[in-house]
Amino acid sequence: MDKTKMMNTAEAAKWLIERNNFLIITHMRPDGDTLGSAAGLCSALREAGKTAHVLYNNQTTKRYAPYMHNYWSEDFSPDFVISTDIATEALFPSNAGMYKGRVDLAIDHHPSNSEFAKHTLLDASCASCGELVYELVIDLSGKISAETAKLLFIALTTDTGCFRYGNTTADTHRIASLLIKAGAPGAEINKKLFRTKTRSRVMIESEILNAIEFSRDSQIATVVVTGEMIERAGADEDDLEDIAAIHGQIEGVVVSITVREVEGGISKISVRTNKLVDAGAICAELGGGGHAMAAGVTLDCNVWEAKEKILAAVDEIWK
Amino acid sequence: MDKTKMMNTAEAAKWLIERNNFLIITHMRPDGDTLGSAAGLCSALREAGKTAHVLYNNQTTKRYAPYMHNYWSEDFSPDFVISTDIATEALFPSNAGMYKGRVDLAIDHHPSNSEFAKHTLLDASCASCGELVYELVIDLSGKISAETAKLLFIALTTDTGCFRYGNTTADTHRIASLLIKAGAPGAEINKKLFRTKTRSRVMIESEILNAIEFSRDSQIATVVVTGEMIERAGADEDDLEDIAAIHGQIEGVVVSITVREVEGGISKISVRTNKLVDAGAICAELGGGGHAMAAGVTLDCNVWEAKEKILAAVDEIWK
Repeated sequence: MDKTKMMNTAEAAKWLIERNNFLIITHMRPDGDTLGSAAGLCSALREAGKTAHVLYNNQTTKRYAPYMHNYWSEDFSPDFVISTDIATEALFPSNAGMYKGRVDLAIDHHPSNSEFAKHTLLDASCASCGELVYELVIDLSGKISAETAKLLFIALTTDTGCFRYGNTTADTHRIASLLIKAGAPGAEINKKLFRTKTRSRVMIESEILNAIEFSRDSQIATVVVTGEMIERAGADEDDLEDIAAIHGQIEGVVVSITVREVEGGISKISVRTNKLVDAGAICAELGGGGHAMAAGVTLDCNVWEAKEKILAAVDEIWK
Repeated sequence: MDKTKMMNTAEAAKWLIERNNFLIITHMRPDGDTLGSAAGLCSALREAGKTAHVLYNNQTTKRYAPYMHNYWSEDFSPDFVISTDIATEALFPSNAGMYKGRVDLAIDHHPSNSEFAKHTLLDASCASCGELVYELVIDLSGKISAETAKLLFIALTTDTGCFRYGNTTADTHRIASLLIKAGAPGAEINKKLFRTKTRSRVMIESEILNAIEFSRDSQIATVVVTGEMIERAGADEDDLEDIAAIHGQIEGVVVSITVREVEGGISKISVRTNKLVDAGAICAELGGGGHAMAAGVTLDCNVWEAKEKILAAVDEIWK
C-alpha cells in the first residue's frame, strides 16, 4: 500500500462530509474506547444524514453490549471503512479480515499506529480515542447530541480509569465537561462502570491479591493468573477487565506484570509501569507493544515460562 | 449573632482584598476538601501579599499531612477568621473552640450550612468546596499558581472520589481541566491518593475479601475483621479507612456489615445500605445511629456475638 495520508480533524471532517455509507471497525477484545468511539462517530454520522454502521464485534462483553445494539451491523456493504482505536491490522476482529488493506480512515491515539489505512487521523496526546472523535464530531457538525456525548463519555472514562490514570490531561477533563454539558449522564455511567463489582470480580481480585509475587526490592509486582484461578472465581471477560491495575497500585511498585493463561497454552502478558520505565519497550522485547505506561504481549507458551521471559525483558530494559 | 450576610465570589474577593491577617479553619476529621480548600486559599492569599495561615488540625492523616506543612500555624493571632467546608460550629476541631461565634467568612458547599459566620459564601451546586475556592481565587487574583492549583485539585478529586461519585458535574471537570492547565500535577496526585495502596492495605483487603459471608440471597454481605487479621496485615488506622466500602460495592448487595474487633472485647460495627434499607434504624436497634445509608454502633461483646446481634437487628428492620 502507498504511504498513509495523515489528516487533522478538520480534514477528516471534510473527508466524511463528502462521502457516505461508512462501516466502522473496532479492535479485538474491544474496550470502552474502541466501542464508544465507534458508536459515537456512528451516531454523529447518522445525525449528519449519513448511513453508518459499526461492524458487529462478537467479543463485546455484557458491560458494553447495551450501549452498542443500535449501531451494530453484520452484513452492511460499505463504500468506506473507518477504524477507531486500532493500532495495527493484527488487532482486527476475525470477521473484519476482509477489510485488511481496505481501511480508508483510521482514527487512533496509539503512538505505535502502523499507518495501515489510506488516511490516518492520529493524536497520541489524547488519553482516549474518544477525545479525538469528539473534536472530529465538532468539526463535522458544530455540535454534539446527548446520545453521541454519552458514547464518547464511555470512551473517555474507561480509557482513563475514570480520570484516575496518568494519561488523563487537562483536555480529557475539558472534553468530559463539554460531554456532560451536552447531556452525557456521567454519574450514571461511572456508577455502572466503576462502582459496582460482581461477586466473581471480587473473588478474582482476592485470588490476585493472594498471588502477588514481589521482586527487585518490591518494585516489581508479578501476578500469574491461571485458568484454575479464573474458574474458581467464576470470572468472565468482564470480570477480568483491567486486572493489571490491581497490583499496580501498591506503594513503591514501579513495574506490575500480569501473566494470564488463555486457552491452549497461550499466555497474555500485560505490563504497567510508572514514568521511570517504558512498558512499551519491555513488551517490544518479546514482539508486543503499546504505550509507555501500559503495554502487552501474547506469548505461545505456558504462564510460568511467560513469566520468566517477561521478567527477563524487564531486566533488559530497566537496568 | 446577627443573620449572616450571603456573598458571591466577587464580593468575597473584594472583602479579602480589603483586609489582612487571616486564619483559616478546617473541620474535625479533616478530608481532602476542607484541607485542600484551606491551603489553596491560604496559598492564594499569600501570593496576593497577605498574611495567612491554616489552623493546625491534629487529626490530619498522613495521606494529607505532606501537602499542609507550609500552611499550618498553631499560635497565629488573626484579625479575620475564615472556615472552609465547615457546615456547623459543632464540626470545629477542639483547638478552634475559641473561634466559635467569631468566624468572619465561611466558604462552604453544604446545603445544610447553619450560617454561623458573619459572611457566608455558599454554593451547594459545587461537588467540592475547592471549586468555589477556585472561582474565589480567580476573582481575587485573576490567575492561579501551580501551588494553589495543586491544593485545589486535591479538594476536587477527593470530594468526588476521583470524579467517580454522583456529585461530579460538568463544572467539576471544567475546573479540573483549568487546574491541570495551571500546573496541578493531576496524574501524580491521583496516583498518590487513589492508585497507591500500602502493602498492608492490600493485605487487609485480601483478608476482607476472603472473609465475606453472604446471607439473605446474597443481599447481605458480612465481614468480621478480627484483631488477628489486622495484625497479620500489619494494618494501621489509615489502612483501615473505609474498609466497609469493600464489600458494599458488590452487585446485588443491599446491606453490608463490618464487625471490627477493637481492644478489650469491644466490637465496632459499621453498616452500609442502599436506599432500600435504613442503616441508621438498624444501628439504633442496638443503641447506635448515623445516616440512612451509613451508620454504626459499638458493642461491649466479642465480634461473633456482635455479628449475631447486628444480623438480628437487620432482620428486625428489614422484613
